[in-house]
Parts: sequence; C-alpha cells; structure tokens
Amino acid sequence: MEIEKYLLEKKEIVDSALERYLPKEVDFPASLHKAIRHSLFAGGKRIRPILSIAAFEAVGGKGNGVLPFACALEMIHTYSLIHDDLPAIDNDDYRRGKPTCHKVFGEAIAILAGDALLTEAFKLMTTRFPQNDSIDKGLILDVVNEVAQASGILGMVGGQAVDIESEGKEVDLPIIQYIHTHKTGALILVSVRVGAKLGRATEEVLKTITHYGERVGLAFQIEDDILNIEGKTALLGKKTGGDLSKGKATYPSLFGLEESKRRAKELIDLAINALISFGPEANPLREIARFIISREY
Amino acid sequence: MEIEKYLLEKKEIVDSALERYLPKEVDFPASLHKAIRHSLFAGGKRIRPILSIAAFEAVGGKGNGVLPFACALEMIHTYSLIHDDLPAIDNDDYRRGKPTCHKVFGEAIAILAGDALLTEAFKLMTTRFPQNDSIDKGLILDVVNEVAQASGILGMVGGQAVDIESEGKEVDLPIIQYIHTHKTGALILVSVRVGAKLGRATEEVLKTITHYGERVGLAFQIEDDILNIEGKTALLGKKTGGDLSKGKATYPSLFGLEESKRRAKELIDLAINALISFGPEANPLREIARFIISREY
Repeated sequence: MEIEKYLLEKKEIVDSALERYLPKEVDFPASLHKAIRHSLFAGGKRIRPILSIAAFEAVGGKGNGVLPFACALEMIHTYSLIHDDLPAIDNDDYRRGKPTCHKVFGEAIAILAGDALLTEAFKLMTTRFPQNDSIDKGLILDVVNEVAQASGILGMVGGQAVDIESEGKEVDLPIIQYIHTHKTGALILVSVRVGAKLGRATEEVLKTITHYGERVGLAFQIEDDILNIEGKTALLGKKTGGDLSKGKATYPSLFGLEESKRRAKELIDLAINALISFGPEANPLREIARFIISREY
Repeated sequence: MEIEKYLLEKKEIVDSALERYLPKEVDFPASLHKAIRHSLFAGGKRIRPILSIAAFEAVGGKGNGVLPFACALEMIHTYSLIHDDLPAIDNDDYRRGKPTCHKVFGEAIAILAGDALLTEAFKLMTTRFPQNDSIDKGLILDVVNEVAQASGILGMVGGQAVDIESEGKEVDLPIIQYIHTHKTGALILVSVRVGAKLGRATEEVLKTITHYGERVGLAFQIEDDILNIEGKTALLGKKTGGDLSKGKATYPSLFGLEESKRRAKELIDLAINALISFGPEANPLREIARFIISREY
C-alpha cells in the first residue's frame, strides 16, 4: 500500500533528524539522556511531524526548513505521553509494548525527561540552521507562538486537565468535545498549520488546511478511544479497556462503538472534502486521513 | 534601606505584568488556573525578573520591552519549583509558608500546572506586544533560544537530574559545582544576559554582565544551602535541614558553614568587581548582589 511506504519514508527522515537534533549524550546526566531516548525512540508513528511535512509540501513548500519544527512537535507529543503515563495521572505501565519511562527510570527522572523534551522543542524551533536561515524571523516567532498556544493552558495541557477533572463523572458532549479538541486535536491541528505557514500558504489555503486539521484531529482521538476498547493488545503494545476502568469520558462511552465509528468516518470524509481545491500534491494528506481510521495501533 | 525599596518597586511591576500576561481564568479548567496562581503568586522575591530589568537598565536599555521576558523567566522558575516539590522529587509540603501546589491541588494538576507555566513562558516570549514590536526579530529568537538552552538538558533540568542522581552518594566539588551552575546558576545567568541583550549591550559589556551573572548565580545557591541549615523556618516558610536529611550534596556539607559563607562573600565581591567599568546605572545590580548573601529568606 502506497501510504505505508510514504509514512515509512518520512518516519525515517524524522527519526534521523531527531537523533541529530537531540543534545549529544555527555557523561552526565546519563539517566536523563537515556530516559528521553527510551520514550522518543519507542516506535512512535510520527503522525504529527509527518502531517507537518505533508502540509508543507501540499502548499508548495520547498527545501527542508519545516524539519526542525516537525521534530519539535514530536518532542512535545512525547513529553505529554511521558507525563500522562505517570502514576499520578494515567498510571500506565506499558506503551507501544515497552515499559513506560517512569517504570524504567523512576518517577523523578520521568518528570524531568518530559520537562527536558518540552524545553528542547522550543530550543529546536528557535535554533538557526542553514536550512531555515532564509525563513522570515517574524514568521518563525509567529509559528513558535502558535505551537506554544496549542500546547499550553488553552490547548493540550488544558484538555488534559479537564480530562482529569472529568474522570468518574457524568460528562456531556460539549465537555468530551472540549477534551478531544484540546488534548489531542490542538497539537494535530497546529502540526498541519505549522507546515502550511512555513510553506508560505495564502490565508485562503491556510483556512482550508485548518478545516482539514480540525476534522483529522477529532477523528484521531475518536479512533484512539475505539482502539482502547476493541484494539489488539499485541498491536497497541498496551492493555485495552483502560479508559472504561478509569471512568474516562469518550465518544464510545457516550455514543457506543458503532456510532463512534460512523462519526470518525464522517469526519475523515469531511477532512478529505476540505482539500477539494488541491491536486495530487495533497494526496499524502488525503491518505494520512484515511490511514487514521484504518490503523490498528 | 534603598535596595529594599527598589526590589519592592520592581516586584510590583513584575507582579502586575504576570497578572496581565496569564491567560484569563475561564470556566474550565478552573483547577489548572488556580494551581498556577497559587504557586506564581506565593510571595516569590522575583529575583530573576528583577535581575533582567536591572541588567537591561544598566546597559542603557529604554522602554519596557524586557518585561515579557523577565516575567517568562519567573514562570520558568515557578514551574521548576512546582515539579521539584513533588513527592517523587523533593517531597516538600511547604514553600514560602504555604502548602505546596500538589498538597492543595493533587499531584496530577501540579504536574500539569508546571507543564503549563513552562509552555506559557515560551508563548509569552514570542507574543507580539506593542512594547517589543521594535525589537529585532532575530534578537528575540536568539534570546528565546538562550532561555531554552539555560532551562533544558544542558542547563536547569540537567542540573536537577544530576542532583537527584547524587542524593545519598559521596560527591566531590566538580559535581557540586555542576549541580549549582546548572540547577540554579544557569537561569540566574540567563536572566541578566537576556536583560543585557535586549538592552543592546555590546559584546564587551555582555561579557562583563556574564561574569557578574556567573558569580551571583553560584553565590545564590550557596546562600540557599546555608539558609537550609541555619535559616529561620518562620522567614523561609519551610522546614530547614531538608538537604541534610536527604543526603544532598551542598557547599556546607563539603566545606562546612564558615568556609561556605566566606566563599559566597568572595563571589559577591568578584561579581561587584566585574562591574567596575559601570557607573551608578549599575547600582541596582551591585545592591542585588549584596542582598543575595544578606537575605534571611
């Protein structure tokens, strides 16, 4: 299948860039470097950086100036997983078939590894590389600001906090949508927007890309919740059913599995429809959208 | 005493700017907003932002373009305190006479409050304000990059990790110095450098300010360790003796109290000597240096 080849190719580019961008391991603090690498190279799909690159290329971006930003988004995603897995939050022992960061390195180092990854993401986005030296500095500042907005109180961290506050409570659709659009959706949306902005998309094109990103972000979270119920432990690398036992508010808990699948499919159709004005240059974005609801992990 | 009036005046400017810059409280996530404010407005001395402002003014900086950066540094400092106090790290119940963030809001929200503050700091530094619109965008990127460097693996977080790794072990002077210069020194140093850079200091002046910042940063940590032994609980707002019971590596544990005091005093003299080429415009920097080893909290 062609999309799998595309994903693999881009994943390799992202993986080797991440390796290059990470601070080199020094004598100490060895535990911190090991903990970061343990989680950052644990077999993640690299969906967010690949979405950035695909959006950059879809709007006609040239060169690889998007790469540091794409990698920064993966670092932010990974930091959020490390902190989410902590005993005080989701208390997960396994992720992608490997013991979680705090199970291997202890809670203290896991907290610091997350803090370090978040900080390194902002360092990376503001580093001068030959490949991004031609990008307008005001545009870079604007992009970094948008990433911070999407990751912070009004974005990912805010969604995570509402998720925690809602555990074990009866919640309605507006709350579930708030959690989804903030906890997962905001970082996916900003991934495509960062790619499009760095590719110098016009306002009109950016609006289109935004419609795509909003729908893909929400579908992604619904699919995650579906996999948490009926996914295969062997493929997910972690136990299923965790949301249910924690009383988490999800689409399946509110609408049931079938209706959730129908909504995820509908969102993906809407995301692809949003790209109607694009030619084949947006095929990767279309295929990634389809992949998101067909994946098994 | 004049320095206390200066510190109070600048603290009020910083406090009201922090209030302005924080995302406004919304319906939810209320717990997150409350947790952030609990720690950010817990009576901190605002030493880092005041050092930034004092360095900015000492090199001839005009206007208040330094203010968002000064406040961002305080947010980063506060996030590090919230995470340090967690049970998995220092397990402290009190700070500045108030229960620590996780004691009031729980560990999950405390972790997220720290994450949010770190993220908001980077959002703040990359936000366009009328007062910093005239600052060169390349300079802003450079400053944000330096703050990230000082806060991350090669700076504050790295120092914290080595501190944790060293607990209960015999450590030598190079390790203690690594911990001090990274865990505390890096953020204090970058505070004065950010102020000087935004004030358009020449390379020569920046070098001088750097010498000052390095010495003040190290003296600050030594004084903290001294206060941890002989400080007054009522003034510090937390129990003393914590370092000793945790087997923490400190100057007093290696050299004893008297020698530590002598070294702190010597460092402050060297910091003030570094400013020899400055006139009265650097008096606040000189006074802050003296304050650092005379403070009781």
